[in-house]
Amino acid sequence: MTDLDHFWAVIPAGGAGTRLWPLSRQGSPKFLHDLTGSGRTLIQATVDRLAPLVADRMLVVTGRAHREAVVAQLPELDAQSVIAEPSARDSMAAIGLAAAFLEARDPDAVMGSFAADHVITETAGFNAAVTTAVSAARAGWLVTIGIEPTHPATGFGYISAGDALSDVAGAFGVLEFVEKPSSDVAAAYVEAGYRWNAGMFVVRPGVLLDLLGQQDPDFAAALRGIAADPSTLAEVWPTLPRIAVDHAVAEPAAAAGRVAVVPGSFGWDDIGDFASLQTLLAGDDPVTVLGDAGLVRAIDADGLVVTSGRTIAVIGLRDVVVVDTGDALLVTTLERAQDVKSIVAALKEGGHDHLT
Amino acid sequence: MTDLDHFWAVIPAGGAGTRLWPLSRQGSPKFLHDLTGSGRTLIQATVDRLAPLVADRMLVVTGRAHREAVVAQLPELDAQSVIAEPSARDSMAAIGLAAAFLEARDPDAVMGSFAADHVITETAGFNAAVTTAVSAARAGWLVTIGIEPTHPATGFGYISAGDALSDVAGAFGVLEFVEKPSSDVAAAYVEAGYRWNAGMFVVRPGVLLDLLGQQDPDFAAALRGIAADPSTLAEVWPTLPRIAVDHAVAEPAAAAGRVAVVPGSFGWDDIGDFASLQTLLAGDDPVTVLGDAGLVRAIDADGLVVTSGRTIAVIGLRDVVVVDTGDALLVTTLERAQDVKSIVAALKEGGHDHLT
Repeated sequence: MTDLDHFWAVIPAGGAGTRLWPLSRQGSPKFLHDLTGSGRTLIQATVDRLAPLVADRMLVVTGRAHREAVVAQLPELDAQSVIAEPSARDSMAAIGLAAAFLEARDPDAVMGSFAADHVITETAGFNAAVTTAVSAARAGWLVTIGIEPTHPATGFGYISAGDALSDVAGAFGVLEFVEKPSSDVAAAYVEAGYRWNAGMFVVRPGVLLDLLGQQDPDFAAALRGIAADPSTLAEVWPTLPRIAVDHAVAEPAAAAGRVAVVPGSFGWDDIGDFASLQTLLAGDDPVTVLGDAGLVRAIDADGLVVTSGRTIAVIGLRDVVVVDTGDALLVTTLERAQDVKSIVAALKEGGHDHLT
Repeated sequence: MTDLDHFWAVIPAGGAGTRLWPLSRQGSPKFLHDLTGSGRTLIQATVDRLAPLVADRMLVVTGRAHREAVVAQLPELDAQSVIAEPSARDSMAAIGLAAAFLEARDPDAVMGSFAADHVITETAGFNAAVTTAVSAARAGWLVTIGIEPTHPATGFGYISAGDALSDVAGAFGVLEFVEKPSSDVAAAYVEAGYRWNAGMFVVRPGVLLDLLGQQDPDFAAALRGIAADPSTLAEVWPTLPRIAVDHAVAEPAAAAGRVAVVPGSFGWDDIGDFASLQTLLAGDDPVTVLGDAGLVRAIDADGLVVTSGRTIAVIGLRDVVVVDTGDALLVTTLERAQDVKSIVAALKEGGHDHLT
């Protein structure tokens, strides 16, 4: 058995991406869009990236409303590989359900959880880190991949690593996970060698569920119960706690010395907002265009323009963000990119759910 | 015969309004649009304003391409009242042609030329000024209406007035017409009592053509020839000089002491660009909306938004201009409103005439 035999990719495909409105919507979230201009949507690119490591050993966990779109975008996947959550109950339930199914299905399974809406460049570095993480997971660790920071980002959590593991080359013990910092604190973290927490976990399914069971035995038992009798999913699901896997398992397990980190040196971004999208796509032109650059006319302007078939003229604006869609238009600045979620909230409050 | 018997309104409907792109287009120029949110297009509002003064004594002069749209927008006009220019040859040819037709048709005619794409408020003041101007025109003067400046505008020409006329109460001799000034010069003009030149001329058709004939006898003869035999229009028209009525007649006539000005105290704007449109429409809300204000969501923003059926969200931009249309979108600032014409020029150069 080679390192990657029985390695399964679990792909949580959730989150509306409200800071990317009006591109990303409840009904058509971020992971269903091609945000890089590559011709592949984020979830397609995620599957493309993982296929060489896992072949068809993949489980996508997504909302019931998106299952049809996901299946349509991923014709290479067996439809059984796309699990529909009856409702959104945060990442512990989603990843835990996949873990319970895999524990029952493949006693030798190691699973790696990789969000459907992140962008990764330098695939060789990614593959190397994952391969090391799988080895550490086989040895019983809950393994995370720690991304080498390129700047003191305030939008990500950080991982503080300790000594090298004695049993797995290339992996280190995790001292703690820390929340998104202020910019002063972020600079100190980068200086101290902390790494970005990209939310990638590699672990044996049984280890994950046992760690959960130490914190919340009922939760772990409920997930295993669904795997034993999938017909109970609809009934049990609404009773599960809404909690992120970080809080439910990763943080307490780190405190207990059960978490390892594998340093990853590759490009990674969660494209949290239009400012990070602009950074990701920026080329030589002052105006970065996602879509058809031939539609954009700019005079004394820079920033990000997302086209949707119409000509867009921009004059005399710095760091502007213009996002064109069929029924809604956003005009803001890179600096205010985080505030886009306020528009979505206002539209919901105003009874304009169809636009969100 | 009362003062306004035999008073004819001539309405030149030309000019693409390129600084109002993408709202105004070659194929659908400014005067065909409702730019005030009144429910009437600019040319409809012009006709509405003049009808109490002239009843059905109106001639609209427009480009061949727009004649059908003009006739459709003005069902109250006899279709014979809408003259189609074979091509655009500036205002002297357009107004001179109307003068030649009127000279032949009504020996007692006085004509007043009023652009189809200006906005006038305080109609009583307008009516009073026009009535005085008609009296002065009957006395043989070329009469212009001088608008009382509300600020030292740099986008309009100015009129320097001299002594009161001895033969017509409320009218003054014109010393000279001056071109659009710098802002320092504009302030001096306003201080000195100069008035805005709104391009409104009231005159007996024969006087206008005779004044033209003193400068360019062939031009005046050609216009009178077309009126005598309209079947020659298509042949003669392309030979006419391209020149504005101001340069062809008004300026030399002023130098010869033949021009009078009637002071007008009413609101007037030529809506030259989106900054002047914003000034015209501005109300209490920080974002001025032309269209459906319910479609606009603004956070920390002010300026002008023109809607076209889609939701428009604006965050964190001061003095922004957003103009939405079906096939083109403009994003700029009030300060750069004049530069919109550069976009139109670039689109033409790039072979995108269909968008201009």
